[in-house]
Amino acid sequence: MSFGKQLASRLSASCAHVAVHKFPDGESLVRVLPVLDSHPIVVRSLHDPNSKVLEILFAADALRRAGAKRLTLVAPYLPYMRQDTVFRHGEPVSQHVFARLLASWFDRVLTIEAHLHRTHRLSDIMPGRSLSTVKEIAAWIRRHADDCFVVGPDSESGPRVRAIAKHAGVPYIVGQKKRLGDRRVRIALPALPQRGRAVLVDDIASSGATLAEATHALRKRGIGRIEAVVVHALFAADAIKRIERAGATRVLSCDTIAHPTNAISLAPVVAAALNRGRG
Amino acid sequence: MSFGKQLASRLSASCAHVAVHKFPDGESLVRVLPVLDSHPIVVRSLHDPNSKVLEILFAADALRRAGAKRLTLVAPYLPYMRQDTVFRHGEPVSQHVFARLLASWFDRVLTIEAHLHRTHRLSDIMPGRSLSTVKEIAAWIRRHADDCFVVGPDSESGPRVRAIAKHAGVPYIVGQKKRLGDRRVRIALPALPQRGRAVLVDDIASSGATLAEATHALRKRGIGRIEAVVVHALFAADAIKRIERAGATRVLSCDTIAHPTNAISLAPVVAAALNRGRG
Repeated sequence: MSFGKQLASRLSASCAHVAVHKFPDGESLVRVLPVLDSHPIVVRSLHDPNSKVLEILFAADALRRAGAKRLTLVAPYLPYMRQDTVFRHGEPVSQHVFARLLASWFDRVLTIEAHLHRTHRLSDIMPGRSLSTVKEIAAWIRRHADDCFVVGPDSESGPRVRAIAKHAGVPYIVGQKKRLGDRRVRIALPALPQRGRAVLVDDIASSGATLAEATHALRKRGIGRIEAVVVHALFAADAIKRIERAGATRVLSCDTIAHPTNAISLAPVVAAALNRGRG
Repeated sequence: MSFGKQLASRLSASCAHVAVHKFPDGESLVRVLPVLDSHPIVVRSLHDPNSKVLEILFAADALRRAGAKRLTLVAPYLPYMRQDTVFRHGEPVSQHVFARLLASWFDRVLTIEAHLHRTHRLSDIMPGRSLSTVKEIAAWIRRHADDCFVVGPDSESGPRVRAIAKHAGVPYIVGQKKRLGDRRVRIALPALPQRGRAVLVDDIASSGATLAEATHALRKRGIGRIEAVVVHALFAADAIKRIERAGATRVLSCDTIAHPTNAISLAPVVAAALNRGRG
C-alpha cells in the first residue's frame, strides 16, 4: 500500500489520487479530485526531485483553486538538504532555493529525517518539521536483532546511532569516513563490542558506497552477520549488490521511498505528528 | 554554435558556461563562473521543462550570491503557456505557476513566440517580453520561396501567417483544425491560390500531427512542393518522419530549440531586444 494510502487510513481521512497527464512535449497536466477538506495533505516523496517539483507545485495550485484553504506537504524524503552553504565560489545554496520553493506553495512541510548539517532544524529554512525514526529503528532492533551492536558509518551519524542504541538497549560504535568521490569512501572503525552481529544504520543510501565500505570493514574484523538499515532507500541501480557483495546479510529500509527493501513503516509516525498538529 | 554563444557574440559580451554536476541520487549541483557583469543573462531553452526548472533557479541563486544585481532569463522556448485557465475542474493554471516561479528568481524574461491564447501579452503574467519571428520567417520566404503561398494550419495561426505573408509579399490561406487527441487532428483548407508551392508555418510542432495533416491536405489538392517552417522544434521522436511521409519536401525550424532542422537563426532578434532594453 502506498505511503499516502497508509497515511489516510491512519488518519481516517479519504484518499484522492492526483492524476498526472504527460503531453508529448514533456509538459505535465495535473488534476485533483474535488477537495472535500479545506486542509488537504499532499503526499509525495521527492527522490528524483528535478522531474517532480513542478508537478507538486501544480497540484498545490489546483488544490487552492478547488477550494483548499491550507496545504500541507508530506514529503517522506526531502531532497536538496545537503547543499546548505556555498562550498565553492559560484555555487548556489540549493537547500534555500528548494525550501523557498516549497514554502511559496505550501503552508507546512512534514518530512522524515531531513539530511540537515549546518541547518539545525527544518523550521529554520521553511515552515515545517522533520520527524525522527530513532524509536522505529530501535523497535525493529529490539524485535529482530537484540543480540547486535549498532554501527554508525561516520561521525555525522553519531548522535542518531547513539540514540537508537540507547532505545534498543544495545552497544554501538561510530566509524570515521573519508569521502574520495561521489561513489568512493574509506571508513575506519574503532574497537568493536564483543558481539557477533552488527546492525549498520544510516539515514540515506545512494551509491551504497558508505554501507559497502562499512560492511567490508566489519567483515574484516570477523563479524559474521551484518544487517544494513537505512531510512531513505535512494539506492542507485547497483547499490544493493555492492553492499551485499561487501558481505551484508540483508539490506532493509524505512518506506519513505518505495523500494523492495522496505521493512519499517513510517506512516504511523507521520500520522501521529499530523494529529498533534491538528489537535 | 549554441544560442547562448551566438547571443554573446552579437552583444559583444563574454559567455560563461554554467556547470551542472549530477549526483547519483538525481540532484543537480550548479556552478557559475565569477560574475563579470552585474547584470548577467541566463540563456536556457526550456523544452522538456520539468527536468530543467530547478537548475535554472539554482543558477539564478548562484549568480546573485556571486554578485549579480539584476538577472535576465532568455528562454528561447518558454513552456507551460498553453494551460492558461482551468479547463476542467481540479486543474491548475500551470501558466501562472510557471510564470510566478520565473518571476520569483529573475527580474525579466525574454522569449520568442510564447504560445499565448487568452493571455494577451507575456507582461500580463510576468515581467518580460515575447519576441516575434514574423520578419525572420518572411525574410526566409523572400530569399528561398518567393513563388509560394503561405499556409496557416488553423485559425490560431491566422494573424501570424497573415503578417508573414504580407512581409514576404506572397498570398496566404488559413485552415481549420479539429483536435481529436494529443496526437490526432483533422484539417480543412479553403480554396488555394494559383501557385504550385506552399510554405506551411506554425509556431510549435510536437507530435507533428498538425503539420502532417496540413501537408496531407495540400498534397490532396495537388501541391507539388511543400515546406514546413516551425518556430519551436519540439518534435517528438517520429514527428519529422510523420510530416515527411505526409509529403513535405522539407521541414525547417528556427533555432529556439537545437534541432537538425534549424535553419533560421534568432539570436539577432534577441540581441536587438536586449540592446534596446539596455539603451
